[in-house]
Amino acid sequence: MKAAIIGATGYGGADLIRLLHNHPEVELRSVHSSSQQGIKISESYPHLQGINDLVLQDIDPQIIKEQADVVFLSTPPGVSRDISGQLIEAGLKVIDLSGDLRLVDGKVYEQWYGNEAANTSLLEKAVYGLPEWEREKIQQTELISNPGCYPTATLLGLLPLVKNELVDNRSIIIDAKSAVSGAGRSPSAVTHFSEMNDNFKIYKVNQHKHIPEIEQGLNMYGGEVPFVTFSTHLVPMTRGIMATIYANSKSDQITEEQLRELFEENYKNSPFVRIRKNGHYPSTKEVYGTNYCDIGITYDERTGRITVVSVIDNLMKGAAGQAIQNLNLMLGYEETSGLNYIPTYP
Amino acid sequence: MKAAIIGATGYGGADLIRLLHNHPEVELRSVHSSSQQGIKISESYPHLQGINDLVLQDIDPQIIKEQADVVFLSTPPGVSRDISGQLIEAGLKVIDLSGDLRLVDGKVYEQWYGNEAANTSLLEKAVYGLPEWEREKIQQTELISNPGCYPTATLLGLLPLVKNELVDNRSIIIDAKSAVSGAGRSPSAVTHFSEMNDNFKIYKVNQHKHIPEIEQGLNMYGGEVPFVTFSTHLVPMTRGIMATIYANSKSDQITEEQLRELFEENYKNSPFVRIRKNGHYPSTKEVYGTNYCDIGITYDERTGRITVVSVIDNLMKGAAGQAIQNLNLMLGYEETSGLNYIPTYP
Amino acid sequence: MKAAIIGATGYGGADLIRLLHNHPEVELRSVHSSSQQGIKISESYPHLQGINDLVLQDIDPQIIKEQADVVFLSTPPGVSRDISGQLIEAGLKVIDLSGDLRLVDGKVYEQWYGNEAANTSLLEKAVYGLPEWEREKIQQTELISNPGCYPTATLLGLLPLVKNELVDNRSIIIDAKSAVSGAGRSPSAVTHFSEMNDNFKIYKVNQHKHIPEIEQGLNMYGGEVPFVTFSTHLVPMTRGIMATIYANSKSDQITEEQLRELFEENYKNSPFVRIRKNGHYPSTKEVYGTNYCDIGITYDERTGRITVVSVIDNLMKGAAGQAIQNLNLMLGYEETSGLNYIPTYP
Amino acid sequence: MKAAIIGATGYGGADLIRLLHNHPEVELRSVHSSSQQGIKISESYPHLQGINDLVLQDIDPQIIKEQADVVFLSTPPGVSRDISGQLIEAGLKVIDLSGDLRLVDGKVYEQWYGNEAANTSLLEKAVYGLPEWEREKIQQTELISNPGCYPTATLLGLLPLVKNELVDNRSIIIDAKSAVSGAGRSPSAVTHFSEMNDNFKIYKVNQHKHIPEIEQGLNMYGGEVPFVTFSTHLVPMTRGIMATIYANSKSDQITEEQLRELFEENYKNSPFVRIRKNGHYPSTKEVYGTNYCDIGITYDERTGRITVVSVIDNLMKGAAGQAIQNLNLMLGYEETSGLNYIPTYP
Repeated sequence: MKAAIIGATGYGGADLIRLLHNHPEVELRSVHSSSQQGIKISESYPHLQGINDLVLQDIDPQIIKEQADVVFLSTPPGVSRDISGQLIEAGLKVIDLSGDLRLVDGKVYEQWYGNEAANTSLLEKAVYGLPEWEREKIQQTELISNPGCYPTATLLGLLPLVKNELVDNRSIIIDAKSAVSGAGRSPSAVTHFSEMNDNFKIYKVNQHKHIPEIEQGLNMYGGEVPFVTFSTHLVPMTRGIMATIYANSKSDQITEEQLRELFEENYKNSPFVRIRKNGHYPSTKEVYGTNYCDIGITYDERTGRITVVSVIDNLMKGAAGQAIQNLNLMLGYEETSGLNYIPTYP
Repeated sequence: MKAAIIGATGYGGADLIRLLHNHPEVELRSVHSSSQQGIKISESYPHLQGINDLVLQDIDPQIIKEQADVVFLSTPPGVSRDISGQLIEAGLKVIDLSGDLRLVDGKVYEQWYGNEAANTSLLEKAVYGLPEWEREKIQQTELISNPGCYPTATLLGLLPLVKNELVDNRSIIIDAKSAVSGAGRSPSAVTHFSEMNDNFKIYKVNQHKHIPEIEQGLNMYGGEVPFVTFSTHLVPMTRGIMATIYANSKSDQITEEQLRELFEENYKNSPFVRIRKNGHYPSTKEVYGTNYCDIGITYDERTGRITVVSVIDNLMKGAAGQAIQNLNLMLGYEETSGLNYIPTYP
Repeated sequence: MKAAIIGATGYGGADLIRLLHNHPEVELRSVHSSSQQGIKISESYPHLQGINDLVLQDIDPQIIKEQADVVFLSTPPGVSRDISGQLIEAGLKVIDLSGDLRLVDGKVYEQWYGNEAANTSLLEKAVYGLPEWEREKIQQTELISNPGCYPTATLLGLLPLVKNELVDNRSIIIDAKSAVSGAGRSPSAVTHFSEMNDNFKIYKVNQHKHIPEIEQGLNMYGGEVPFVTFSTHLVPMTRGIMATIYANSKSDQITEEQLRELFEENYKNSPFVRIRKNGHYPSTKEVYGTNYCDIGITYDERTGRITVVSVIDNLMKGAAGQAIQNLNLMLGYEETSGLNYIPTYP
Repeated sequence: MKAAIIGATGYGGADLIRLLHNHPEVELRSVHSSSQQGIKISESYPHLQGINDLVLQDIDPQIIKEQADVVFLSTPPGVSRDISGQLIEAGLKVIDLSGDLRLVDGKVYEQWYGNEAANTSLLEKAVYGLPEWEREKIQQTELISNPGCYPTATLLGLLPLVKNELVDNRSIIIDAKSAVSGAGRSPSAVTHFSEMNDNFKIYKVNQHKHIPEIEQGLNMYGGEVPFVTFSTHLVPMTRGIMATIYANSKSDQITEEQLRELFEENYKNSPFVRIRKNGHYPSTKEVYGTNYCDIGITYDERTGRITVVSVIDNLMKGAAGQAIQNLNLMLGYEETSGLNYIPTYP
């Protein structure tokens, strides 16, 4: 199987190159960029010297089709909206890592993204690529919309509770923290080293584009959730997301053991979700560079609240890793194929 | 005025030395340690070479009294409980930075600290040193219990809401993040550089000793709050705390402007509290090395929730800086005396 | 005395504002910028909210003269070259933190900076502001060229050796490491957090503009030094420079004690230079936020080489702090006036 | 092939586990520790949960032999000295990552390590495992002494120059910088996060144990080098070493192009050494998590000095990665087997 990457010079693209290099079933054949055509990818990323020296090409669906069977889009808003249709028509399978096709309702997209939405037929065709909750449809589609990083961590941590009607659906608060690579590779004042180092920032309070995606996911796979409160923070580190999730328990008879068992049961067939023992919680470094989502759960009798801690590597399970997981499912390979990494620790 | 520090080799002690060195009214005359007597403080802290070369002495109330009028305790659990009484009897004014005297109810202390509490008369004598809400009693006491770092950030951010009955008191969730210096100077696996760098950790979920202190403060100065949910995280940085505080608004007619004005009104006579403009939130670096508490407030119509963001330097407003502020009030100096630092930025 | 800052929005400017705020003899009256006129400095730097809310003004020598007696230039290459003359003619005293006036020989400037040099009369008028080696001229001038950060750390560590003819002047190698704030406030790929965090980089090998400045300083105050080898690295931290300096000892009879005493003697009247005990070396954090230069010295009998370790805060002794030190000398104040900071540690 | 690790709970052990997990030819069968027997390795390292849940066992050569064919020692000084002989007698192949067997001359070991040396027959049996310069002997031995992290980066960067008699062998200075994981997993004051973060330290000036190892390697594979000057620094990051190497060129006719070509020629059959284009230098992150050694070279006509920049991941090419490379050679596998990692970037 031959693959192409559009938007290869971003961080999502870099991790896709890393993963595809060692994938036993797929070969990366071409890389594409809207701005850096003609240079080698290893000039943009010297760590790839001698490993991948492909030359960046233009973004032309016909030319891509000549070189590839499946294409990843790791692109800014608007690109996938405009070209995914052509790529599919050209006979390519498409995995879109951008946000363009995640929201089923174009109007919601336009409201939160402030951008024109993709047309309805494209939105209807796209399958939301959260394998742990949507495995079957992913296996049968040719267009996958890869989830956002925050929604992945949040939905994996919350859905077992909502699906099993254990919490008050109006009480959900998600306090999320992300490494800085989530902001992408373009330099900015916020991500300037001297401003971000030894600093902790909150941003986009109540306004993050991932809010409607989280709410949509909860309603699609869990139950009726009218809204969530969602805050995002920047941590002075390179990779990792932690979502600390709070919800009021419906019952005061629940125990931590029951909750852990529920999560274990829910994810017993999901090789990338690891549930911590009671009393233990994951830290972000424990999934560094891998596709794991590690989860810890606790219940506080005093307050009646459940707290779930969910961590991922934002560029892996939050982007490129999940994209490969989706590729595997879509193409009928082992779900873990090419993803057998152990966290780089320390 | 002459001052002594007990527990001078910890981080609270180091910042007290920094602040007292430039205090216009007080002179640091002696430093005391239970374990490093006989060496110069500048051997323990080379950054003090040529600035403060006092030799560390034993902890003996009578000898301290011969050298000082006021004494700071920056000590582990149990020390203040055991010697604060003697220090006061010796005629010293005492500012205790430890947790020993913060909880009015000794039984609550024993439950959360797992330690024997101080005797009731000592607990009753101690005034809780949160100047913005307890200025008058502080001015009249000789024994101050300096608040914890998390409670300081949290109470300053929450009390205006609770006091004015704007939120559902059963809905309060505080998601707090601290720099690593809050864990003190003793090396440990958790705070080992290679384990903490590029990592984000959650710890003591629902079990932090500061929970009863926050609840006590809310009830003392605000209103009846049965409980709060409180989570603590470690950020890979040296100084700073952010408390992200969530509560359900009682009214859906409130506006962000009203909330900001309420906070401004509440703290108009509090020189160290700065309220951000609507739509702006502080980051921890913006108070680095200073006694400021910076606060941002927002209200989300969609969810009916208020979010308050409160940041401090955990070693300053969260420890040594607030201790000097209390000293100033207790001794009748300007509240800002010796605290006119500008944040070191970047 | 009234002061103005041109280029107030950069990091040098920010630290000048911090220092002038608490200077007992000088008041900051106006701040100037070529690009952000009309906004408050506290909008560019929220940490200044409520402390300094001056509005940024245009750069006009006549208007500056109406408001100030002394002016600091913290500006990119070319600005000081073009306006320092006018500022002096307008009767202002000038302290230039840029590199424009540091090199006495305009041709050397043009060769290393790739920029047109200032005219000769201006270059001749400017006094190189390294107080420890040029105190008298600084006291008598009205135009000071503030040294670069690397040259400051290097010259203070090397000059006692060269001046006393202790080393082979052809053998000098300086391996310098800088915090990222030395690269300024403009975002770039090199200083993007995700590229710089958990990373260590070398840059401008043998090509740094500070090379001719170091060589000039060695020849002016020390002795004939034909060249030095000088390498610069970026450390993932915000503030601090360490210069590790190597030179072959002329004698194999020298001892570490003698070397230390020589340094102590050389700097006995220099309040900001601290010499470490034999066997001890400073780390950058030990001068954080202050004007100190801390130095450790060793001699290796096995190799016949002397190693000197010199650390400063690049924004303080390497920029704003030294500028204030120069201001004090030029205006006849105490050399340490407004600079009595203790390192913020940890 | 079955493998065991002695000292599995340290950082070298953790990376060996990571690498062996995906090695196509070798299976990790047992892990051993002198202090944590009886617990699962995944309790010491939660990132291994569900990946490797082996229980830590005692260190007993006979029992190890029953489970393994090859054993890695990632142990403190003295362990390998005492048990390597028994392991070999038991018929095991041994790869020792400690410093015990690196120095051929036991007296030199005792002088620099302050420890009793291994007996001479053991020292003579051990082959120094620097594959790029000792490939043949490694292929024929059963006892490999894996090089130190600093010597690996230094020797790979220096040997082409010394071997080809291009530099004055008395002029060599190595300024080395290491990530903090090089100090191991035991908490200490130096590696305490709050002391190390945003800080840069120098340590063991002229006294590091790796000095005699570097000198021995230069003399074994290069030419007569009487001594080197070698300094070590700690960088606030987790992984990576950079050695900045200075030497006086014998000729002033050499060019950068010639130097680069010389290095390329030297390492054309060494899959883990990558030479940068002229004018480019590697940063440590560009080899993160991999077995690469990336090298940049420059010549400065002005000073007649050559500067070589050599970077590795201290836990990989500096420890576990190189150990696997040696294993591959010793057992006749592909040299790159199980080491086909791409740097995790960013």
